[in-house]
Formats: sequence, C-alpha cells, structure tokens
Amino acid sequence: MALDLTSLPRPSREDATVSERVRGLVGSEILRIAAEIRELVARGNKVCNLTVGDFSPKEFPIPDGLRDQIGAALQGGETNYPPSDGVLDLRQSVQRFYERSLGLKYPLEGIVIAGGARPVIYATYRAVLDPGDIVVYPVPSWNNNHYVHLLGAKGVVVTTDAAAGFMPTLAQLEPHLSTARLLCLCSPLNPTGTMIDPEALRAICQRIVEENRAREGRGQKPLILMYDHIYWVLSFGGTKHVTPVALVPEMAPYTVFVDGISKAFAATGVRVGWGVGAPSIISRMRDVLGHVGAWAPKAEQVATARYLDDTKATESFLQSMRQRVNERLEALYKGFQRMKDAGLPVLAIAPQGAIYLTVRFDVVGRDGLATNDAIRKRLLEKAGFAVVPFQAFGLAEDTGWFRLSVGATSVAEIEAALPRVEATVREILTAK
Amino acid sequence: MALDLTSLPRPSREDATVSERVRGLVGSEILRIAAEIRELVARGNKVCNLTVGDFSPKEFPIPDGLRDQIGAALQGGETNYPPSDGVLDLRQSVQRFYERSLGLKYPLEGIVIAGGARPVIYATYRAVLDPGDIVVYPVPSWNNNHYVHLLGAKGVVVTTDAAAGFMPTLAQLEPHLSTARLLCLCSPLNPTGTMIDPEALRAICQRIVEENRAREGRGQKPLILMYDHIYWVLSFGGTKHVTPVALVPEMAPYTVFVDGISKAFAATGVRVGWGVGAPSIISRMRDVLGHVGAWAPKAEQVATARYLDDTKATESFLQSMRQRVNERLEALYKGFQRMKDAGLPVLAIAPQGAIYLTVRFDVVGRDGLATNDAIRKRLLEKAGFAVVPFQAFGLAEDTGWFRLSVGATSVAEIEAALPRVEATVREILTAK
Repeated sequence: MALDLTSLPRPSREDATVSERVRGLVGSEILRIAAEIRELVARGNKVCNLTVGDFSPKEFPIPDGLRDQIGAALQGGETNYPPSDGVLDLRQSVQRFYERSLGLKYPLEGIVIAGGARPVIYATYRAVLDPGDIVVYPVPSWNNNHYVHLLGAKGVVVTTDAAAGFMPTLAQLEPHLSTARLLCLCSPLNPTGTMIDPEALRAICQRIVEENRAREGRGQKPLILMYDHIYWVLSFGGTKHVTPVALVPEMAPYTVFVDGISKAFAATGVRVGWGVGAPSIISRMRDVLGHVGAWAPKAEQVATARYLDDTKATESFLQSMRQRVNERLEALYKGFQRMKDAGLPVLAIAPQGAIYLTVRFDVVGRDGLATNDAIRKRLLEKAGFAVVPFQAFGLAEDTGWFRLSVGATSVAEIEAALPRVEATVREILTAK
Repeated sequence: MALDLTSLPRPSREDATVSERVRGLVGSEILRIAAEIRELVARGNKVCNLTVGDFSPKEFPIPDGLRDQIGAALQGGETNYPPSDGVLDLRQSVQRFYERSLGLKYPLEGIVIAGGARPVIYATYRAVLDPGDIVVYPVPSWNNNHYVHLLGAKGVVVTTDAAAGFMPTLAQLEPHLSTARLLCLCSPLNPTGTMIDPEALRAICQRIVEENRAREGRGQKPLILMYDHIYWVLSFGGTKHVTPVALVPEMAPYTVFVDGISKAFAATGVRVGWGVGAPSIISRMRDVLGHVGAWAPKAEQVATARYLDDTKATESFLQSMRQRVNERLEALYKGFQRMKDAGLPVLAIAPQGAIYLTVRFDVVGRDGLATNDAIRKRLLEKAGFAVVPFQAFGLAEDTGWFRLSVGATSVAEIEAALPRVEATVREILTAK
C-alpha cells in the first residue's frame, strides 16, 4: 500500500515554506482566462479562442522537413547532452541565417542556443542586471514585469500611444535612459502586432550609443538593449523589419537579440531558441542557461540546423505561414473595419506582424461595463469571442484595448464569430 | 554585404556590460578538463574518457520504445506549448510510477514537469530561498555552490568522510540545521556512486521534523529538504534506495524530489525531468519554471508518459541498463582492487549506484605531484585515463579522490586502460 500524500498542503498566500520572492510572483492573467474558456467549452458553448499566443497544430503544423529531421536525429542517436552553448552545427546555421537574412555577420561565440526564447529573455536579464538595477520597458508588452520581479530589479514603465502603434518614441524613453541598465524592446510586438518605425528605432539607438560613450568616459556600466524579435519573419504588407545593429552598427556591443523557431515555424513546443549578441554578454548568458539547465533538446537542435540550412524549404514554408497568418488577421481586421464603418465604437489597428491584432472596444462605461475585464467577460459569454485585455500586458488604464491572437483559429471560425461580436456590441449600446 | 561583427568584445573579468552576479559565476572544472582531452585526442592520443556525467549513445542508446513514441507524438502534432506544469498524461504517469515503485501516492498538483532535472534543482532553490538564506550541503556534491551563488544565498558546506561513503551524518549536519532554510541531499550520489544509509537518513529526517515542529511554534519558516535522486533506479548489489518520505512520512510537506529520465533512460539530451513534493512548493516551482521557460519539449513529454506506463518495457530496459552500467563499474573496481592487492596506493569504493566510481590515488606529494589536479594531468597525459578530481565537486583538500564516470566507455576500453594506469602509478612511486 502506498503512503497517501494526496492531501498535502496546497499553495496559499501566507505559506511559509516558500520564499518571499516567489510569493510575490503574479499569476498569469491569460491562464486565468484560459480556465474560464475551458469551463464554457465543457458546458457545450462555441468559443472562438483568440487568447493564446500559440498555434493549433491542426491549423499550423510545424514544417514536414523539420519534423522528419527530428526523427532522423533521434534515429542517429542524438540523445545525449548538447554542449552548454548549443550544438555547433546549429550555431553555425544561425550564424549563416543572420548573415543571409539580416545582413549581420556575428562570431560563433556571439550565438547561444536555449530551450526556447523565454530562457533567452531570462538569461539576458540575469546576465545584465544586479538587484536594484533599472529596467525600462514600454507597455503594453509581454512579461517584463515578471522578469523585473524575479531579478529584484527596478522596473520603469513607459506607456505608449495607440496612435504610434503602441511603439515607444525616443521622447517617451528619454527621461529614463540616463539611469537605466537595460531597455527592452520587442518588434513585431506582442501583444499589438505592430512594428517599430525604423526612424524611431534609429533615434533611440543613436541616443543609447551617445549615452554609452558618456558612461564609458565616466567609467559607468553601459545601457544594454534587449531586442526581442521572435516574430521577425512574420511581417505583412509593406512593413519592413529592422534591427538596431543594422541601423546603427555602434549598437552591436550593447544589443542582445532574442529569437528562435517557436513562432516562425509554429514550433512553440519544440523548444529551440537562441540569443545573439556580443560574446562578452552571450558567454555569461550561456553560463546562466547551463546552471538553469534550460537547454534545447539535442535532436531538435541537430534537426533545426539541417532545416534552417535548407533555404528553399524554409522560404517556401515561411511564405505559406505568412499567408495563412495574414488571411486570419485580415479577416478579423476587415470585420472590425466594417463594424466601424457602420458606426460601431470599435477600432482595429492594421496588422503588420506577429500573430496578433489590436482592437479597441470603446464601450467602457456603457451597460455597466466599468473595466476592460468586464468587456472581455461579456464578449466571451455573449459572443463566444475570447480575447485578452491589455491589462495582461501591463497597461493600467481601462481604455478598451485587446489582443486578438490567430494561431489557434481558422478563417471560418473567425467569420462565424464576427456577427456574434457585432450583435453583442449593438446590445451593449442599446442597453439602458 | 553583411556587417562584420566577428571582432565584437570577448568576455573578460572586468567587463562592465554584465552583472556582478554573473561575473562571479565560476566556470565548470569539468568543461576545462574536456577541452584538454579534446586536444589530446586531436593529436592522435588514445583516451579512456571517464570525465563526463553523460552517456555515449553508441554505448547507451535511449530505449527504442521511447524513441519511437517521440516520433509518433511528432507525427501526431504534439508540437505546440505544453501546459506550464507539464502534459497531464505525463504527470499522471509519474504519479503512478511513484506509487508503484516508491510507495508514495502524490497528488497531481505535487508533480511538475521541467526540461531536465537541472531546472528542477534551480526551481527548488528559487522557490525556497530569499537572498541571504542559508543552504546546507555536503561536499563532495554537484553544483550546489553555483546555485547558492546564483540565488545570492549563504552556503554552509559540510565535508563528509570517505569512511561513510562521503554521505553526511546527522552529527555532521546538526550544528547547522537550526539556521538553515534548505538542506540538499543526493543519493545515489554524484560524484561518488555511493548511497545513503537508511538509518542515517531516518535520523536526519526525524531531526528535521522535530526542528520544523519547533519552528512552527515560533512562527518561523521551515527547513526544506531537496532530495536529488535522479539516479535512483540505477542501484546495484544489495543497496536499497530509500526516500525521506517513505522513512518518515511527516517529511512529506518539507521534501522536494528531483528526478527525470535523463540518467535512468540514458536520455540526457531529451530534456525531460520532474519535481515531486507538496503542492504548496511545487506550484511555486511551476511559476518559476514558466517564467524561465525551462519546459520539456511537448512530444518528448507525451512520449515519456506512454513509455513509463509500459511497465514491461521499462523494467526490461532498466534491467539491461543496470547490468551494462554495473559491468563497467565492476571492471574498474576490480582493476583497482587488483592494484591495491599488489600494494599500490589506490583505493576504490565499491559501486552502489549511479554511473560513478570513487577512486583514491594516494600519491599526493610523490614525484612532484602537489595537488589532485597534478595527479589528474599525469594520469591523462601518461595513461590516457581521464578522471575528475573531487575539487570539481567542492572538496577543498588535495587528498587524491577522483570521480570515474562510465557512461561513455566500453568494458574493453576500461580493460585496455587499466594496465596503463598501473604503469603510471608505478612510475610515480619509483620516481626520485
């Protein structure tokens, strides 16, 4: 008979067994919403789920070539420890990929492989910050608040404007740059699906270079830029992805790129990411990743190296991937445009990149809806339309902004949901 | 033309771009030794490499069933995000495994999946410790010093005795238990291959329970035990693996198990580990692992669930695994016994578990060999016999103790190397 331990203590806020630091970790808003959706679906409701920054493998399978290469690598016995900075073939393959596609030739020591992009973000924070150091990040953005908390750093939030696609400008960042150790930018941006304007980024980078020149003269630590461009191959229409280093080469010693296969190749569960930057920083990130053990599985590393080098296969997959993401985003965008043209208080920002659309439901204060979360609940319950309020990305104001993620839906599901959304908005407007 | 960044700054001790904390991280001794070995092999030397705590896939492939299940899961589209605490099927499968094999029935909320056992260790440290908290750990042991450093905790080292198989006793730990927040034990132990005596462990556990009862009365945080038993299915001869919770059930709220498939199934590169304990702690570890992103790849999680439930296949694999590890350890052990019987100053501790043998080369001070590292170098250069001194596991004294790891060698390689070792030891003894 086994010892029955099933009634061991559950987590509580007052629990003394755990550290203050982890007790202060805020739970994910998105996971809480996911639980509500599961409940509705279990009760037989139809839900168009636009909440998760993930893919449904039915709608978005990984490339056949990548899948087959993983199988081949397993058969070939690629099952033991990878080197702590990643399999050499993959680092070389990423090196060629960046040279070919971004015009940046990094040294091999400037490339580290990790088990996804999250560990690269964590390692960047870890490698750059000591407790109390200042991190500047725009909101809405993804999870910077959690990383700041985990590191015991000091977060400085810069709230961006819808009119600028929720991208920060130098003027907004300027008051904080002289004290910061780390600036976190992301483009295409999770949650908005917008991309940073090259001239705005150039201005920010020139300011960082100037700042760091002054700091060097004073013997102070430089300001580092974490540039999360995990969605960079997913951009649509005329918008061109740019990098800090290509725009301002003097940024190279101060820039860390966060990247990987998770989004570009619909491979969030395959766990292969990479960080690219100056070896001085990347080598420390490798040390952190090694102790944390956040390595990519070896067969997946070998397979990704082979797949990335097959430029014909990757280009053809990415072309189809962009097209399939874009048709979903466009279906949503056009639907909201039609509602707007019909006089409804909704506003969508034209999709530029990533798998997200930003939509405003400008109905705060109507029909007893006091907060974004109340609007979210109404849309979920009345329209079976599941979206995430920008509160989940650090925005404080209840101004009606939401993230809509298309990786787990079909165009048909979207088309079917839009009339339900319109009816719900009309209902809100006509309520006494 | 790509921007040439290949001469970006390399890491240096004075580098101001990175944090004090990561600059203080000590590089791995084992990796330094690995580089020396690579150089020798490149020059055409024959080396019996007993340094890495890993497997050669040629000598130790992963189970066919596990490999095939990973392929099937990839075909089945298991390529998107796993839940943050792991795939439910795998958590249930681990639950059954612990009930069946260890007699411990944990609740599902007490099981978290991670990308290997290292992330589980890191998450345990993270979930339990605030900066400045005290961690007690015996040496020799694996990497506790690095985790203490990363957390900004205070490490208290307890040096164990060879006579007790390098396992700590209550008497040795006692002076430190009243102030500690975390005690780290490992059995079978990396680096020694020895196992803790059930009565010694019971005494330690009873003391922890008593300590925590007193602390509860005083409103103080309890002492948590991290029990790393990643090698537990690999034990040989008469030694039986025991757990703190089975010995002293009151330990359940205070024990975190570190475990996974990495060593048992020769799957270090597959990256599937798990932590088991009270949900109050495990849920915080899940939060940490989620932010760090140290998740196991999804297809591997699904595959491990299916494979672990195939009890016939796993038992037959483990039986063969134990036998193959044991024959290598025995070949080494008997070889050193023969040398000892011939009057040479060598001493091996009989293998009990894991993939390690502990051997003493009692020649410090002979032939100009002042340190363990000098002995290591001599054995490598003269005998092509690569071993790791206990310094790499935190032992301070140069007393001639070494770890020999057999996962990447054959019995034939071992047999071929032993005469070279004997000749080298004789040469040391006869030198003027």
